[in-house]
Amino acid sequence: MSAKGGPTITRRTALGAAAGAAAGVALGAAGARLGFGAAGGGDLGSVAAARGLTPEEAEAALRSYVPGGDLDEYLIFASGGHSGQVLVIGVPSMRLLKVIGVFTPEPWQGYGFGTDQGNRVLAEGSDPAKSLPLRWGDTHHPALSETEGDYDGRFLYINDRANGRIAMIDLRDFKTKQILDIPNLQTSHGGCFVTPNTEYVHISSMTPCPITESGYAPLSRYKEDFRGFSTWLAIDPDTGRFVLDKSFQIELPPYTQDLADAGKLASYGFGFINSYNTEMATGGNFHEGHGDPAASLESTATKNDYDLLHIIDWKKAEETVAAGGVKVLHGMKVIPLEVAADEGVLHFAPEPRNPHGVDVNPTGDYICVGGKLDPNASVYSIDKIKAAIDAQDYDGTDPFGVPILRLDSVLEAQVELGAGPLHTQFDDEGHAYTSLFVDSAIAEWTLGPKAGISEDQAFRLVEKIPVHYNIGHLVTAHGDTVAPHGRYMVALNKWSIDRFAPVGTLHPQNFQLIDLDAEPLRVLADMPIGIGEPHYVQMVALDRLDRTLRVYEPGTDPVTMRRSPHAVAAGEERVERRGREVDVYMTAMRSHFTPDVIETRQGDLLRLHITNIEQTPDATHGFAIPAYDVEASIDPGEAVAIELELSRPGSFAMYCTEFCSALHLEMQGWLLVAPA
Amino acid sequence: MSAKGGPTITRRTALGAAAGAAAGVALGAAGARLGFGAAGGGDLGSVAAARGLTPEEAEAALRSYVPGGDLDEYLIFASGGHSGQVLVIGVPSMRLLKVIGVFTPEPWQGYGFGTDQGNRVLAEGSDPAKSLPLRWGDTHHPALSETEGDYDGRFLYINDRANGRIAMIDLRDFKTKQILDIPNLQTSHGGCFVTPNTEYVHISSMTPCPITESGYAPLSRYKEDFRGFSTWLAIDPDTGRFVLDKSFQIELPPYTQDLADAGKLASYGFGFINSYNTEMATGGNFHEGHGDPAASLESTATKNDYDLLHIIDWKKAEETVAAGGVKVLHGMKVIPLEVAADEGVLHFAPEPRNPHGVDVNPTGDYICVGGKLDPNASVYSIDKIKAAIDAQDYDGTDPFGVPILRLDSVLEAQVELGAGPLHTQFDDEGHAYTSLFVDSAIAEWTLGPKAGISEDQAFRLVEKIPVHYNIGHLVTAHGDTVAPHGRYMVALNKWSIDRFAPVGTLHPQNFQLIDLDAEPLRVLADMPIGIGEPHYVQMVALDRLDRTLRVYEPGTDPVTMRRSPHAVAAGEERVERRGREVDVYMTAMRSHFTPDVIETRQGDLLRLHITNIEQTPDATHGFAIPAYDVEASIDPGEAVAIELELSRPGSFAMYCTEFCSALHLEMQGWLLVAPA
Repeated sequence: MSAKGGPTITRRTALGAAAGAAAGVALGAAGARLGFGAAGGGDLGSVAAARGLTPEEAEAALRSYVPGGDLDEYLIFASGGHSGQVLVIGVPSMRLLKVIGVFTPEPWQGYGFGTDQGNRVLAEGSDPAKSLPLRWGDTHHPALSETEGDYDGRFLYINDRANGRIAMIDLRDFKTKQILDIPNLQTSHGGCFVTPNTEYVHISSMTPCPITESGYAPLSRYKEDFRGFSTWLAIDPDTGRFVLDKSFQIELPPYTQDLADAGKLASYGFGFINSYNTEMATGGNFHEGHGDPAASLESTATKNDYDLLHIIDWKKAEETVAAGGVKVLHGMKVIPLEVAADEGVLHFAPEPRNPHGVDVNPTGDYICVGGKLDPNASVYSIDKIKAAIDAQDYDGTDPFGVPILRLDSVLEAQVELGAGPLHTQFDDEGHAYTSLFVDSAIAEWTLGPKAGISEDQAFRLVEKIPVHYNIGHLVTAHGDTVAPHGRYMVALNKWSIDRFAPVGTLHPQNFQLIDLDAEPLRVLADMPIGIGEPHYVQMVALDRLDRTLRVYEPGTDPVTMRRSPHAVAAGEERVERRGREVDVYMTAMRSHFTPDVIETRQGDLLRLHITNIEQTPDATHGFAIPAYDVEASIDPGEAVAIELELSRPGSFAMYCTEFCSALHLEMQGWLLVAPA
Repeated sequence: MSAKGGPTITRRTALGAAAGAAAGVALGAAGARLGFGAAGGGDLGSVAAARGLTPEEAEAALRSYVPGGDLDEYLIFASGGHSGQVLVIGVPSMRLLKVIGVFTPEPWQGYGFGTDQGNRVLAEGSDPAKSLPLRWGDTHHPALSETEGDYDGRFLYINDRANGRIAMIDLRDFKTKQILDIPNLQTSHGGCFVTPNTEYVHISSMTPCPITESGYAPLSRYKEDFRGFSTWLAIDPDTGRFVLDKSFQIELPPYTQDLADAGKLASYGFGFINSYNTEMATGGNFHEGHGDPAASLESTATKNDYDLLHIIDWKKAEETVAAGGVKVLHGMKVIPLEVAADEGVLHFAPEPRNPHGVDVNPTGDYICVGGKLDPNASVYSIDKIKAAIDAQDYDGTDPFGVPILRLDSVLEAQVELGAGPLHTQFDDEGHAYTSLFVDSAIAEWTLGPKAGISEDQAFRLVEKIPVHYNIGHLVTAHGDTVAPHGRYMVALNKWSIDRFAPVGTLHPQNFQLIDLDAEPLRVLADMPIGIGEPHYVQMVALDRLDRTLRVYEPGTDPVTMRRSPHAVAAGEERVERRGREVDVYMTAMRSHFTPDVIETRQGDLLRLHITNIEQTPDATHGFAIPAYDVEASIDPGEAVAIELELSRPGSFAMYCTEFCSALHLEMQGWLLVAPA
């Protein structure tokens, strides 16, 4: 816990009788200026009591409430798990501000229901070699772009665990601009993690991928034919887009690579990936008509006492790529495993079996690994890692020839936290916060001298706070950057069980807001998550998001963020026919489309170019042709394109789907498709 | 406002200096029992002051906060607009508890991503005559099933405005069980509204539909070839499902039928539908290369001073159907327009032009119409309507021969409320609350003697409360039933503009919670809606939802809610091959699937029958085969089926997508598809 105050949240006062009385006197004066004081305060107490709130609950209400019209101090960007989306939530109000369509079509946003923007982004993000266009994702780890190791409010990256994909969202309009189906990854857990100046976004494989021509290999060839890949995607600094020809991969053994993190400051230039299943187990728990639970991965992939922390020197990898030490696999430059080992791009270090999170502290000195099946946080030192690498202080190699650093040489400390430690975040005072899945708790503990903690206080458990229930990730404000804020922490609990009103057999997840300034730590609010299952989130100060638009420049194509060549201004509406092709240049404004009647014939190819010519914030128009499954959302200034093959004849309603004006319901028209 | 107290919310006390001081003394004693009192209360004041909250804001925080682990008092079921879904929100906490997949595939719930349940429901709900399978909807008006005019907590119905469809959600598991693509409707606004014992769910058309063979007609034939339809869908009382062969439609003129409501108590047996565009305008605002805004519907459909309230006697309609007075159109029994007029099934009454909401008060005596382009609420009396019908007190007929009741004979009162009145809800004390879109306000006003208001207080404006901004619908607790609760009101505002932290060019909507027990009315909280655009909601007491399941009986098929014939118990796992067909009977439990490796060949037809054999609440497992775009969500006890044509060879990861245990990440397996 930190003892500092913020601009609007002050350190809370203990509510005990004696302390309360003293505080009441001392703070009554401040309260009186705003109309509280003894009488007003007494009234709040009676309101709380009448609702059955305890003093602690009443205080939590006051600490988390954000009045209508006031803005939250922080935003959190949460992965939506297998919803495929990203969730934007205000802190401390814990209000869901937006669900951003990313990997799953989302009609409110007109994303993937006929408009070029959504359809193009989604189509580009689905490798045509796959049997079906992909229509969902499993978003796991959001990564805000960084400048000098802190969030710069420009772009948000998010991985799709399910299909080894990655998306970029522009924080000017909170829309998805690019999805990349990454070669040689079939699933991904170790992404996204940006390097301190967003030179690269890292994403690595989870389940290894067959590297055979057909994409098929039997499990008996697991060691030979399956491989993991650590991917370093180069980013265009202007657009935030992935630049594939400046990107590269590092081939990895067919372990299950898990979470990752990029080094910073002291560890700048390095990346870290946890792994499990170094046993290379492949399951197979059913034989000759009988199940054999002991042959499940949960048993066979947990036999080794230690798995292997992957330590990647991406600066050295860049040199290796520049020197031509790569092969090309499915269009991607790949540093082969033996080259990575020989050139010092890749080292391993032992880590307690089946770890989960690997998190680099703000100074970059400590790499904190959650044990999952081990009660300890294991803290590695970058100084020790560098020294061991220089000294070739190895404990042999793995079966693929990658050198393993000696554990004793690189481990700084182990801190016993409790059952099931997973992930760690940080504050600005040298403290770490680690989620404990099995304990359903968060452990607060101290880092070491490099983080400003004195030797005698270093690497100690400070306190634990229970959460409800089964916490996965957690987050603190700017908690994975070089400059954490402290203030707030959110526990991302996987189960809610009985915490909320019952809503059927699929229960919401539970985000719990925790006051980091409270002593002891205190839960302020529970927030149900009834759409998707967030895994990781990042919390950024609202004032860092200073590029956000409220309307577009007139005629903007949201994919390019430039004026669309097909933008339409008022008075420029027109219909152009060339044979069976019909181009309609349409405007939308309260409360009509122009033109509002489109006459075509069955078999025509219809292209609609629609511009919302308003510049009033929030004056979004929808545009639906239901019978053709078309739904666009057109924000003020936005230009969209829709292309339809008119296969079915009929007289079809078109209408504005976004309630825009008193005569919104009159904002409708007709698509007439005469039979051929 | 009502002056009653509830079990946990008591009537608030004015916060003025004198009143506050008195209240502080009087209520301090009650507060002290829970640990408040002067000192504790003073401390709350200081917490609030330190965060910059005004006394009013602090009180609002305390009135709306629900501590973690406590349950909300009410749930609201909100349409999700063009998200296609239904939102479930707690009151007073305004927390989003769940988004239910209805018309749009939703992968977190495994709805429409390969499992039989979602795929079957969505496929049944998309008329194969349509050119594309429909993948979204525009949900507008939820309707909870009723017994004796009040919510019975069994089923929820919701219409799809976009395609004239309707869905049924079972409130045992909060999942969509049936979608019906209703014949002869292309879009729908006048649904859903249930009759008091859920005999029928009403849904009527919005844009009229061509009744030609091809589904096409030119707009020049609008009067002759286009028709609206009022649909009365019979409900199976046991399953809540639509029974098409007991359902019927009433043919209507090609006006734009808008919102509707079912009569209750005094008006039981009747239904009411607003209309606009009785001008039968068809738009056409672009001629010879030039736009002509004056030819837009917003002008041409607003010329008449009066549109026509449709009054339907559904009891008489039943008799007409029984007597064979129907034709069959696309499989639906239809009472032709002339028969409806002749048999007294359909009457019209004039209503101020372009009305929007039509709402029947709790006693059923008053039918309240929002004027939209008229500052009044127009109140019709069912007694007067019945008398006028009996007396054939007509002011001629419309162009289609439907008799029009004389306005003076049926209008009880008009109450001037302000600009843009839309929708009305009710409390238990004879008060009505009407949303004012243009004013951005809610007007509270009194009904008449039949609602318990004295003659001298009847039909008067009581007060107005501003909302932010551009309110559409509103809701009070049980506010459209025979027994409203008062207590809470929610304003469904279409625009939020500047109320929340900026999240790009598409702004959230804004739900505002209002304390109906406060005098004057007071806003307690703003809730951003960042997923879809809700239109109507219903608010039901949590204790009315007493059928909700937390887990399924073992092996339940969620579509039928019965044991699946393909359910698998522990130890019954098996693989059955017949030629190219492979049936895998699989179980899921923490932390493995059995079998976890499936060996097939390209070209096989794979059927997976997976049962989650757990009975622990919240122990849901996901099941994904990403490369085949498959994502299932399998709740405890649930049995799902997945069918795949294995066209693409490869070694594909399968995994559990719902974080279920410490070894959740190890819950994975392989689908091996050997090349043909």
